[in-house]
Amino acid sequence: MTIQTVLHHVREKQPLVHNITNKVTINDVANSLLAIGASPIMADEEQEAEEITRICNALLINIGTLNAQTIPAMLKAGAEAKRCGHPVVLDPVGAGASALRTETAKQIIELVQPTVIKCNMSEMRALLDNAMNTKGVDVAEDDRITQDTLAQSVAEAKRFAVDTASVVVVTGAVDVMTDGNRVVTIQNGHPMMAQITGSGCMLGAAIAACVAAGDDVMESAVAATVLFGLCGEKAAKIAKGTGSFRMAFIDALSTVTAETVQKEARYENF
Amino acid sequence: MTIQTVLHHVREKQPLVHNITNKVTINDVANSLLAIGASPIMADEEQEAEEITRICNALLINIGTLNAQTIPAMLKAGAEAKRCGHPVVLDPVGAGASALRTETAKQIIELVQPTVIKCNMSEMRALLDNAMNTKGVDVAEDDRITQDTLAQSVAEAKRFAVDTASVVVVTGAVDVMTDGNRVVTIQNGHPMMAQITGSGCMLGAAIAACVAAGDDVMESAVAATVLFGLCGEKAAKIAKGTGSFRMAFIDALSTVTAETVQKEARYENF
Amino acid sequence: MTIQTVLHHVREKQPLVHNITNKVTINDVANSLLAIGASPIMADEEQEAEEITRICNALLINIGTLNAQTIPAMLKAGAEAKRCGHPVVLDPVGAGASALRTETAKQIIELVQPTVIKCNMSEMRALLDNAMNTKGVDVAEDDRITQDTLAQSVAEAKRFAVDTASVVVVTGAVDVMTDGNRVVTIQNGHPMMAQITGSGCMLGAAIAACVAAGDDVMESAVAATVLFGLCGEKAAKIAKGTGSFRMAFIDALSTVTAETVQKEARYENF
Repeated sequence: MTIQTVLHHVREKQPLVHNITNKVTINDVANSLLAIGASPIMADEEQEAEEITRICNALLINIGTLNAQTIPAMLKAGAEAKRCGHPVVLDPVGAGASALRTETAKQIIELVQPTVIKCNMSEMRALLDNAMNTKGVDVAEDDRITQDTLAQSVAEAKRFAVDTASVVVVTGAVDVMTDGNRVVTIQNGHPMMAQITGSGCMLGAAIAACVAAGDDVMESAVAATVLFGLCGEKAAKIAKGTGSFRMAFIDALSTVTAETVQKEARYENF
Repeated sequence: MTIQTVLHHVREKQPLVHNITNKVTINDVANSLLAIGASPIMADEEQEAEEITRICNALLINIGTLNAQTIPAMLKAGAEAKRCGHPVVLDPVGAGASALRTETAKQIIELVQPTVIKCNMSEMRALLDNAMNTKGVDVAEDDRITQDTLAQSVAEAKRFAVDTASVVVVTGAVDVMTDGNRVVTIQNGHPMMAQITGSGCMLGAAIAACVAAGDDVMESAVAATVLFGLCGEKAAKIAKGTGSFRMAFIDALSTVTAETVQKEARYENF
Repeated sequence: MTIQTVLHHVREKQPLVHNITNKVTINDVANSLLAIGASPIMADEEQEAEEITRICNALLINIGTLNAQTIPAMLKAGAEAKRCGHPVVLDPVGAGASALRTETAKQIIELVQPTVIKCNMSEMRALLDNAMNTKGVDVAEDDRITQDTLAQSVAEAKRFAVDTASVVVVTGAVDVMTDGNRVVTIQNGHPMMAQITGSGCMLGAAIAACVAAGDDVMESAVAATVLFGLCGEKAAKIAKGTGSFRMAFIDALSTVTAETVQKEARYENF
């Protein structure tokens, strides 16, 4: 299945994505899912978590503003999604920044076994080696993926994918994606994506929608990540600052054709 | 009172609207109330719910990201608003998607007796007949109001209005509004309104502001709904995607004159 | 240290700001911090509050959608920030609108002793004299700072600064800033800033970032407030309504140079 086909399937099937996500970017996540043709529902109440997950096609768990009371909803929805055979994407925002975040992410990984874990390098290292090199919710300077550190980053991502039995997507200037065996690196993207909040959160949800609509987890995750990087490039061309970048990014998500994404994709097997 | 007069009154009286609403569109709801000339306050803590409601002119209850702990605030604020003679608008987002949502909406209807219930057809059917034909928070395909299904939709809305003793606003390609006796259908609007999150939530709040500022519930609800549909049309003309549509929609709300709304209104008694 | 220097330091040091803030404008607060070159983390869970504060450079406490369960996180983070020597900014949104808000703001003032309290005149009066002249979260008509009421406003702000041992920033058509001794008034700004939600919330966070990056609290607070007023003026020039104003405001924050801010600043010692 090509990138193009995955994106066509999202628009045709309009997968319903159950999001248990943070308060900061919850609106961006909903609007970006609508923009790519999927349908969002946000529900973080434990009492309805399983019921909501059952009527959906995929589940996103994002711990960006983790509250103790929401953890049971994450675990219940996660277990139910797995029972239903729905893909589950975990975005362990800020893992390493607090014990609560690190431990909760680990608990979700152990109990839910997410289909995909989407994170930055600092978060991955916190979960892989209990490293605590965090700059809050952003990647620490030392953890940035560059051409120099790429081989090392790939090796760690593979180890993390094997350990967790998940497809791992590590975002950065170069995005690294692996199922522990195959590795894909993605060059699409733009530095302005890091100057707004929510780029990563929206990507996590888009991966959930694409995996639900596609039939290969790696390919679907590549499709979502290329789509995002490309829309970031398009938005940066017309942005007059970070406010208009954010708007133009959603515009691009809602108007770019699957054919354009396929054509302008820059990714390769590593 | 004409549409024009209702909108003038909103800008003059600047009604203060107490919103107990969801986390997804809470910012859009606040900004849209400011755009139409009303004043928002968001407060969902049980301990202050009654006090906040007392200083306001209207109450909006929206269950879009329902949490068990917020329900007491909804019920207390609702009861206090009724005691004060303030209009209460209920937006039963996702009724039918979970038992918690359906039951909570029913409880609010029974205990608070909202002045207006604003919903889509799937939500109304869930509350009317315990139907469970939901596509999350969006209307299910089978439940869309079309010219073919209009007569049936109107009949159900009338029954729901009689059962609840509320004015019922059912949004769709055609919006249906009824107090159980009089029926108005509204043609203003644009499909892009369904491609962003928050159109419905913002409308619920605008109805609350208009009802507080006007003197006839049906007319005020018509004014708000026509205003929204018309601003959707205006925004769609200049939007370059769903991101700029959302911005242009708020721009239109904040700049359209009451006279233009009156002139371009497309609604009729059914 | 000049305004220019403070803003340069923010972009160089990229202070990490811990925000315990409201659900309405949490996204705006994060994006505005990123726009000025700082780095935001939002975390309101009691279990991680101290840990998060420790890795940050400043703390913002905003009670705009106060929930009882978040108060312990505010107090713990506040105490820890003081222990670490980090600046703490309190934004007592809606103080005077409910006993819970007024009492919580007072409790934070007493137990945390904020470095800066940023408020409007109604909120200040509620905290100073238990006045209850509130229009929800906006300033009451009678409380607006005008040329006529400026001397009186300054006197009250000085008293509040002395009572609380905080730098006090009272926003209005003219902004008043005082440490109880020195008084600065700021003329930059635009009325459209009051037609969107979040101007005040974003300013509180920007003050936190500037105080963390600068070396004099008053000067840093002046820098942030002038920056905001000026970006409001710039945004108003190109806005087509309140939606595009909001976007243009973030654009301006992310692109205005420190030199321009220094040059176009309009403030004076009172």
